[in-house]
Amino acid sequence: MTDLRTTVERFWASAEARDWESFADTLADDVVYTLPQTREQISGRKSYVRFNREYPSDWHLRIERIVAEPDRVVTWIRFTVGQDEMNGISFFTSDGSGRIATVTDFWPEPYEPPAGREHLVERY
Amino acid sequence: MTDLRTTVERFWASAEARDWESFADTLADDVVYTLPQTREQISGRKSYVRFNREYPSDWHLRIERIVAEPDRVVTWIRFTVGQDEMNGISFFTSDGSGRIATVTDFWPEPYEPPAGREHLVERY
Repeated sequence: MTDLRTTVERFWASAEARDWESFADTLADDVVYTLPQTREQISGRKSYVRFNREYPSDWHLRIERIVAEPDRVVTWIRFTVGQDEMNGISFFTSDGSGRIATVTDFWPEPYEPPAGREHLVERY
Repeated sequence: MTDLRTTVERFWASAEARDWESFADTLADDVVYTLPQTREQISGRKSYVRFNREYPSDWHLRIERIVAEPDRVVTWIRFTVGQDEMNGISFFTSDGSGRIATVTDFWPEPYEPPAGREHLVERY
C-alpha cells in the first residue's frame, strides 16, 4: 500500500508534467472531485482526468505546503499562468489502498481588506 | 510539550467560547498571522487576540476537517454569521513547544463556474 502523501506528490508532479497516465494511476476508479465555491462535482476517474487535461491555458504549479496523515492530506499550491499566480488548497482522502478517493479544492481570490483594523495590521 | 493538534482544537474552541485568555494561551508571544488574499499581517499575541476579539458580528464556527502532523496542522472550518456560511482554511505551525507560531488563513468566496465544462460536472 502506498502512503497517501506519496500518491499526492505524484498527483501534482504528473499534472505539472502533463503525464495523464501517471496522473490517472493516482486516482480511485470512483474518485469524486468537489469544488465548494461553485458547487460543482465530477465523478469518476475518466471524467476527472479529462477535466484536468482539458483545463485551459499554459498553467504551472508547485507545492507551497503539504500536511499529511496516513489517510488524509492537504496541499497548498501556487498555480501560475504567465504572470498571474493563484493559491489553491486541496483536501485529499484515501480509498484505503493509497489511491485518491476524494479531492476537495478551494481557490481563494484576492480582495480588499475591510476598514476598521488598520491599527492592528500591516500590508505586505 | 502539547501536541499542536490539541493546541489548535483549543484555539478554535476558545474563539467560539470568546474565552480570550484561553485563546491567548495557545499562541506564541511573537505569533504571526497572515492573510494572503489581502496581503495583511498581524504580529504579536496581543494584537492578534485583539483582532479576533474585535472581529465584528455574532459569528460561530465549527471544524469541518483537521489534518495534523506533530508540528503543522490545517483546519477547514465553517464560519457562520446568521444564515451566511463561509469556508475558512487555516495553516498552523508550531513554535516547538506546542504553541502556535504562525497562522495563515484563506477565505474562499463562491463564484460562478466558467463555461465549457458542463459535459464533465454536476452542480449540487
